[in-house]
Amino acid sequence: MTVEHTTTLRVRYSETDQMGTVYNSRVLEWFEVGRTELLRAIGLPYAQMEAQGVFLPLVEARVRYLGRAAYDDDLRITSRIAPEGKASLRFEIDITHADDRPVARGHTIHAVTSAEGKPVRPPAWLVDKINSSAGE
Amino acid sequence: MTVEHTTTLRVRYSETDQMGTVYNSRVLEWFEVGRTELLRAIGLPYAQMEAQGVFLPLVEARVRYLGRAAYDDDLRITSRIAPEGKASLRFEIDITHADDRPVARGHTIHAVTSAEGKPVRPPAWLVDKINSSAGE
Amino acid sequence: MTVEHTTTLRVRYSETDQMGTVYNSRVLEWFEVGRTELLRAIGLPYAQMEAQGVFLPLVEARVRYLGRAAYDDDLRITSRIAPEGKASLRFEIDITHADDRPVARGHTIHAVTSAEGKPVRPPAWLVDKINSSAGE
Amino acid sequence: MTVEHTTTLRVRYSETDQMGTVYNSRVLEWFEVGRTELLRAIGLPYAQMEAQGVFLPLVEARVRYLGRAAYDDDLRITSRIAPEGKASLRFEIDITHADDRPVARGHTIHAVTSAEGKPVRPPAWLVDKINSSAGE
Repeated sequence: MTVEHTTTLRVRYSETDQMGTVYNSRVLEWFEVGRTELLRAIGLPYAQMEAQGVFLPLVEARVRYLGRAAYDDDLRITSRIAPEGKASLRFEIDITHADDRPVARGHTIHAVTSAEGKPVRPPAWLVDKINSSAGE
Repeated sequence: MTVEHTTTLRVRYSETDQMGTVYNSRVLEWFEVGRTELLRAIGLPYAQMEAQGVFLPLVEARVRYLGRAAYDDDLRITSRIAPEGKASLRFEIDITHADDRPVARGHTIHAVTSAEGKPVRPPAWLVDKINSSAGE
Repeated sequence: MTVEHTTTLRVRYSETDQMGTVYNSRVLEWFEVGRTELLRAIGLPYAQMEAQGVFLPLVEARVRYLGRAAYDDDLRITSRIAPEGKASLRFEIDITHADDRPVARGHTIHAVTSAEGKPVRPPAWLVDKINSSAGE
Repeated sequence: MTVEHTTTLRVRYSETDQMGTVYNSRVLEWFEVGRTELLRAIGLPYAQMEAQGVFLPLVEARVRYLGRAAYDDDLRITSRIAPEGKASLRFEIDITHADDRPVARGHTIHAVTSAEGKPVRPPAWLVDKINSSAGE
């Protein structure tokens, strides 16, 4: 039971490198775009979460690079969220071209912390929203 | 009467773009490296300034791109600081190759503010340090 | 007589810094988004220009920082293009919040070059398109 | 039997985010700094490898985020290289504070390709250098 959401983006020139394709770290920045739009879609905008004192720093990231992407390509980012144990969240992200050719796939695992980086129990409003969205 | 300081850096692959040279916005990131090292050299590490509640957000930046720089090039960043009016600071930055071929030149102008972005009068310890360093 | 085009973007978390606002160099990356979308709108996608051997490297950039922008803010980028002398192009860019509060304003000046960075005369199809779009 | 090399870097302001720590994707850019300096140390500067037509695009990256790093922190990047099967290379990277507190740890796996991204057999001069460095 997971929540899934798809958003799109255009590859910026600033995201390319001299290989003529996308620089590897940009994929983690796109994973963030996927997380942001998924959380907005289920009614939990991340900006509001931080305003309420709940932060989601990464504890792990993994990316598999599956195909080339170039400047101005029109990409799809499909994101899923699920609880990871009792105290963490996991996002699975899939990036493809508009015609489904794969670009990158991976996941990030996030702690739930205070502004100072102290682990906190995931608030009920967060857990409930994820569970109820997954069940829709 | 200005303070001047030179530091060096290697161009990273992440700083290139598909033109095979450095992406234009990276030069502003290198200007920051120049400012950081100049402020450290005169005994005003910027991390300490922020810890004391003094921030230097940009109000203006100008860059002239004078020559190509590529991955792994060894560059020199020469920075100068001077007061700009009563409430601002100005950094002039010059970036060259090790053999003096020019890469970029420009300046940034900074407000002096609180953590919340409110303009504050530049503290005496800041003004004194800049003036005394310039006079050395 | 200039061509004008407006596009929008969301501020990414990766574009913020520890001041809690947007890091200064990101504005030049957004200027690029403005240029890309303006060129597409007038029928000159920049990816196609490069495929035809015409490159537009920056020779100058200037930014005035006019107001704070934060993570997840919804911004408007308004871009105008005009010839600059016989051999260059100039883009004027204005970035505001959705409610028109200013964020940044500036310009970039671009040489017209071959893939190797040699200046070339702006091709007629480029000049004609800019002039005819401006006259529409 | 692996080759190991340590380099250092200062955290840039541009690498922080509004959490007040380093933005997650920057770690992959630092992994690149580690790879670049390790390859230079064993006599295989990556800029020369590309000039000879050998490219090392990523096929996989994994990062575990182990501790906070902030602006101006002085970090150590320790990199190791080893063959991964017959056609790939693997870098293991460890990033710590100067006092050994961990920041991040992970690996990247790289294909060996032509400039066009076609897989090629790792050249003998590359394999020999890695093996002989490992044996030193």
